[in-house]
Amino acid sequence: MAEGDFTPTREDRFSFGLWTVGWQGVDVFGGAVRPPLDPAEAVHRLSDLGAWGVSFHDDDVMPFGSTAEQRLEHLTPFRKALADTGVVVEMVTTNLFSHPVFRDGGFTNNDRDVRRFAIRKVADNIDLAAQLGATTFVAWGGREGAESGAAKDVRAALDRYKEAFDVLGDHVVEQGYDLRFALEPKPNEPRGDILLPTVGHALAFIDELEHSDLVGLNPEVGHEEMAGLNYAHGIAQALWHDKLFHIDLNGQNGPRFDQDLRFGAGNARGAFWTVDTLEQGGYAGPRHFDFKPPRTEDLDGVWESAAGCMRNYLVLEKKTRAFRADPEVQEALRAARVDELARPTLDDGEDLATLRADTDAFDPDQAAARGMAFERLDQLALEHLYGIR
Amino acid sequence: MAEGDFTPTREDRFSFGLWTVGWQGVDVFGGAVRPPLDPAEAVHRLSDLGAWGVSFHDDDVMPFGSTAEQRLEHLTPFRKALADTGVVVEMVTTNLFSHPVFRDGGFTNNDRDVRRFAIRKVADNIDLAAQLGATTFVAWGGREGAESGAAKDVRAALDRYKEAFDVLGDHVVEQGYDLRFALEPKPNEPRGDILLPTVGHALAFIDELEHSDLVGLNPEVGHEEMAGLNYAHGIAQALWHDKLFHIDLNGQNGPRFDQDLRFGAGNARGAFWTVDTLEQGGYAGPRHFDFKPPRTEDLDGVWESAAGCMRNYLVLEKKTRAFRADPEVQEALRAARVDELARPTLDDGEDLATLRADTDAFDPDQAAARGMAFERLDQLALEHLYGIR
Amino acid sequence: MAEGDFTPTREDRFSFGLWTVGWQGVDVFGGAVRPPLDPAEAVHRLSDLGAWGVSFHDDDVMPFGSTAEQRLEHLTPFRKALADTGVVVEMVTTNLFSHPVFRDGGFTNNDRDVRRFAIRKVADNIDLAAQLGATTFVAWGGREGAESGAAKDVRAALDRYKEAFDVLGDHVVEQGYDLRFALEPKPNEPRGDILLPTVGHALAFIDELEHSDLVGLNPEVGHEEMAGLNYAHGIAQALWHDKLFHIDLNGQNGPRFDQDLRFGAGNARGAFWTVDTLEQGGYAGPRHFDFKPPRTEDLDGVWESAAGCMRNYLVLEKKTRAFRADPEVQEALRAARVDELARPTLDDGEDLATLRADTDAFDPDQAAARGMAFERLDQLALEHLYGIR
Amino acid sequence: MAEGDFTPTREDRFSFGLWTVGWQGVDVFGGAVRPPLDPAEAVHRLSDLGAWGVSFHDDDVMPFGSTAEQRLEHLTPFRKALADTGVVVEMVTTNLFSHPVFRDGGFTNNDRDVRRFAIRKVADNIDLAAQLGATTFVAWGGREGAESGAAKDVRAALDRYKEAFDVLGDHVVEQGYDLRFALEPKPNEPRGDILLPTVGHALAFIDELEHSDLVGLNPEVGHEEMAGLNYAHGIAQALWHDKLFHIDLNGQNGPRFDQDLRFGAGNARGAFWTVDTLEQGGYAGPRHFDFKPPRTEDLDGVWESAAGCMRNYLVLEKKTRAFRADPEVQEALRAARVDELARPTLDDGEDLATLRADTDAFDPDQAAARGMAFERLDQLALEHLYGIR
Repeated sequence: MAEGDFTPTREDRFSFGLWTVGWQGVDVFGGAVRPPLDPAEAVHRLSDLGAWGVSFHDDDVMPFGSTAEQRLEHLTPFRKALADTGVVVEMVTTNLFSHPVFRDGGFTNNDRDVRRFAIRKVADNIDLAAQLGATTFVAWGGREGAESGAAKDVRAALDRYKEAFDVLGDHVVEQGYDLRFALEPKPNEPRGDILLPTVGHALAFIDELEHSDLVGLNPEVGHEEMAGLNYAHGIAQALWHDKLFHIDLNGQNGPRFDQDLRFGAGNARGAFWTVDTLEQGGYAGPRHFDFKPPRTEDLDGVWESAAGCMRNYLVLEKKTRAFRADPEVQEALRAARVDELARPTLDDGEDLATLRADTDAFDPDQAAARGMAFERLDQLALEHLYGIR
Repeated sequence: MAEGDFTPTREDRFSFGLWTVGWQGVDVFGGAVRPPLDPAEAVHRLSDLGAWGVSFHDDDVMPFGSTAEQRLEHLTPFRKALADTGVVVEMVTTNLFSHPVFRDGGFTNNDRDVRRFAIRKVADNIDLAAQLGATTFVAWGGREGAESGAAKDVRAALDRYKEAFDVLGDHVVEQGYDLRFALEPKPNEPRGDILLPTVGHALAFIDELEHSDLVGLNPEVGHEEMAGLNYAHGIAQALWHDKLFHIDLNGQNGPRFDQDLRFGAGNARGAFWTVDTLEQGGYAGPRHFDFKPPRTEDLDGVWESAAGCMRNYLVLEKKTRAFRADPEVQEALRAARVDELARPTLDDGEDLATLRADTDAFDPDQAAARGMAFERLDQLALEHLYGIR
Repeated sequence: MAEGDFTPTREDRFSFGLWTVGWQGVDVFGGAVRPPLDPAEAVHRLSDLGAWGVSFHDDDVMPFGSTAEQRLEHLTPFRKALADTGVVVEMVTTNLFSHPVFRDGGFTNNDRDVRRFAIRKVADNIDLAAQLGATTFVAWGGREGAESGAAKDVRAALDRYKEAFDVLGDHVVEQGYDLRFALEPKPNEPRGDILLPTVGHALAFIDELEHSDLVGLNPEVGHEEMAGLNYAHGIAQALWHDKLFHIDLNGQNGPRFDQDLRFGAGNARGAFWTVDTLEQGGYAGPRHFDFKPPRTEDLDGVWESAAGCMRNYLVLEKKTRAFRADPEVQEALRAARVDELARPTLDDGEDLATLRADTDAFDPDQAAARGMAFERLDQLALEHLYGIR
Repeated sequence: MAEGDFTPTREDRFSFGLWTVGWQGVDVFGGAVRPPLDPAEAVHRLSDLGAWGVSFHDDDVMPFGSTAEQRLEHLTPFRKALADTGVVVEMVTTNLFSHPVFRDGGFTNNDRDVRRFAIRKVADNIDLAAQLGATTFVAWGGREGAESGAAKDVRAALDRYKEAFDVLGDHVVEQGYDLRFALEPKPNEPRGDILLPTVGHALAFIDELEHSDLVGLNPEVGHEEMAGLNYAHGIAQALWHDKLFHIDLNGQNGPRFDQDLRFGAGNARGAFWTVDTLEQGGYAGPRHFDFKPPRTEDLDGVWESAAGCMRNYLVLEKKTRAFRADPEVQEALRAARVDELARPTLDDGEDLATLRADTDAFDPDQAAARGMAFERLDQLALEHLYGIR
């Protein structure tokens, strides 16, 4: 393959959070290593690299506490950059975690006043999102959780969480916005334990909402891998529930702090199956990156890292397509009886009684001797990742 | 407190899997260290220790592949022991993981023949469960999963998983059995990744079933903690969904192999909050232990370990009740505004418009100065665990 | 036990890093939630709570880049507070991780200029430590590491790490300072992987140093538990090597971000064995706390949290002493043959030849039947933790 | 690259434990899925696949408890297979973990009788190893550890551990065997916590042995990754100490049960850096695989899996060589100042005094602006893994 094959275009629908390339490197142990990045500048640079869209938190583009007028003013250069480049705002999200008022979260803060403030802040931002043409509104409840057992009544918290999405869902419906919510689960950090810690917990929660049809998921690679979970399995289940509304691609090395590595770094085989699942599974949303250029990097490294995210996706997209098209793979899939799993276990019209009667042909000890031939199949996949097939 | 306070009685509804005290110590690295334990003997010994119930897999009490007549014969001494002691069979489950035919699982095995056999095996066991008066049927799909990416089409697997519970649910309804299913999630081991890896994933799955009202959860302490998740939070969410049908109590030290320590060992503070959540949350099911007496132990150690499970529950039950009744704790809960979370965020009859208009009184910077007083509350809880209050 | 039993005194030799109570709550996701805390104020408050000592990084008490004169000036109020309270500076450490110049670490930074600067910064601080009477100099190399494979030549990095400690060790010897180094291992965060990630790696490294007698360990509870390791085992091995020079006590809930909970929070059973190992193992150094009062807390919560660290240590000290003194425990220890492990495996004067000849009396199958009686012993320990014995 | 490039030859010095391909699939949750594999058959099949050597536990080739004569008899067909194929026995190890007598370990068992038996068993096997021409004797103390705190006196256990290696080291020296010991660390499983849990802990322990020159490491990929540690960093530190005597290559997906996947599966980027570290670091020992063909596989899958181990090593060897030879990589390494780390921090003849005086040229704020350019370097490495450069 030539390097040139992997140049992103608008059609690839790559999108970046402004907070990714804009991260200045502040962490628990040290201060900023990079200057602030102007949102308009970020739009231009990302556009030059081939990105199609951006996303942002309100506080990324407008200082916390801006009045309605100030907000408009702050947005002007950003909106001009969008217009000049053709970059779209595909997703908007609200920062309910940085200001100290959110020390115990937003929608599930024990302080009722703060919960009310959080809903107002999100509502303002929903209006802005609609105005800017965003179709997804992500909700990451990073400060919704606890460090200790009695501090949070989890069932009451889920009641309040539901209340917030119900009232905000009403608003979206009433306004006729073309906007859907996407919840972003995370197991921990910055809170000791976060509510709705995985894809599964969030899916279950959504089922209880008034506007459950409006609410889906924005699963992040690293967040699931922090719990040792298989990310591709997680998004496959989300697709099965028709709830994969958006996606946060990045890299992580298993259970530890949230690394937010560029997509492709971290779990390389996991990334292969992630792309395969998205491409095979009919995911039609943006390919959105939520990463942090490591604190070792200057701005050149920031752009290198952003470019790498897109390039790696394209590389893996090509590889996974080649994998699925490879006749030897197709034969190996059949040998592993992967196709057989798509066939219902009961015959058409069969019921349990006839199934229970059908015992003649099956000898479990004999059947037990049949290997599944998964190692051969997996080796073929690995060789596609290696680029040696 | 005197030691004598913690003697279990039938009213405590403690229950044990026969496979717990019956585990002979076979693991990946070594063979049996203890002789087989006769199920009837186990019933008598558990009864002597104060247990109220038992649970079992079909293969725990009847050899794999027994005919209907052989099954009855094998059950006779076990049933006699139940009758003699008054111990009840509160839960039954099916072994779909030990026989080599289940190398790729049961309900989601790529081999359709095996899936059909698995459904038959479970249906037979459901009938037995109903006959024995069990009201819960646990399904742990320990071999439903994969070690490699292409081997398992997750969405097809979930279709098959659903198909199996739908047809078995039909059967329970048709037969009029007083029996509910309880799914037991686990993230991994023995498979590299298991389907429905957490409480959340299983809850979401249940919502898609034909008989979702018949299906709930049997979450195991160690299984959630293997994913680094907060078990008390998990069962609180299950209670919120009205899906905590049954429970598997044991101990674990975080992400590593499935340790199945006796309840109380492992995460001691987690156990405190687990009992608090069960007792505060109105859980009314059996207190079921699923543990493995360590391989270091002989049979004396087995019974020591089983007795410890019950004793530790009773100790923690007393401690958590004392915690909730402590006036200083109640004051600390108010200081932490835990009660405020139970109050809806919107006033009665309020809508988003009025909420958005209500901005006068709230200054986020001022509100940000308020600490949550969680450390004091948590220290009080710890002191109840320590028994120094 | 009465509450009043657990009031710390100077004799308990409790010590706190100034950066613990002084942490303002800045993390990756949010800014300061608490005002700066003046070091002199911290000394007074910690003294009032019963602390005996403090420790600090240079940058905790003097702005980065202060001249020698400015340093003296900045130290004046702090030194006055020490004099007024009698609180001692028992340990000093250098901040080689906050300023952006240390983005790739200090002693092992790829930039030789930065490495030279780091050694100068540490040398200045060693002189200050000696001047203030500190006897331990901690080195936590939190930024010594990498996020990616080629970025760090690990063997060259270890050469440079050794070089730094060798030249600084020379300095301590030449100056005749009564000061020993204590390395603090950590597996990751803020770097993707940190050099000398565990107690073991640091112990092995020390053996290669010129002044290995001057260098020991300062192991932190949470850092070992982030790698899923047993902290009590780690410090027991450090004691075995005579290298437990200092200790960082706090709390953690397994592999995840560095939580720095107050001592007693997190792994409660681990804390019991930690105190038992320290008290039984003859550890004679300060009982130093390195924790972060959660971001939910205001200053009241900070002091509540600090007081809890000391109180919990005293509670566990009393419990572990009671455990060791309990006749039933002593009998259980004998039943578990714990005492037998202290006896050499070979008889006095015996060699391998005679050992190999001594086969008559031993039948492995017979010996295999003996259980170890560990469950009974562990239950007794748990009951001491619960305070019900 | 053509597929044919990756055919192993004897010169590649690939070696397999007999217990790898011979694993029958017994785990905690199920019985054997594959028939026993005759050691002689295994030697022939591995030879056909291109392996150069094998390793074994005593109990892999001779039933536990065989007399000296029976041992010889059992070995005959195995030795014939070695002679017929030219396959060498490069390493031998002793099974101190399967028989129930080792329920509490071998060298550190609380039972002194068992410790004595363990030393005899190992001594017999050392003699056999020498007789068969093996040059490495691996010691994995998988049952040396504990599930609970008081059960194991860690310092006494380390005394006994040392005693065993000292007496066995004496034996090797007295007999003049050309044989070195290689310790294999593991953090947990089958014990709750294992002694010498990581590469670091074992390195530190070795320094205390009488014959420390005879004792090094056999680190296993999965064992370090179970603790979330970077395996390439671990073996780099072992090389730095001149202690990488042998290696166990396999695959793992982070902290969870010991997966023992074939080499190449699991952490794909980690495998790249593992091979790079071995090849760049001058490791001259066998390339030994310690994996378990998944329980899903029949014997065809076993051989597929074994072949994959070797093939993947050769693929990665080629890729890492290409990476190091790539001029763009070399330029990126310079830009990341990786070469600068090899240069001592102090000039030749410089001491701390002159270093401290050399402050003129360095402005930390200015230096802080320099990015490390690691993202570009890491992207190049990833593209070599992908095979797109």
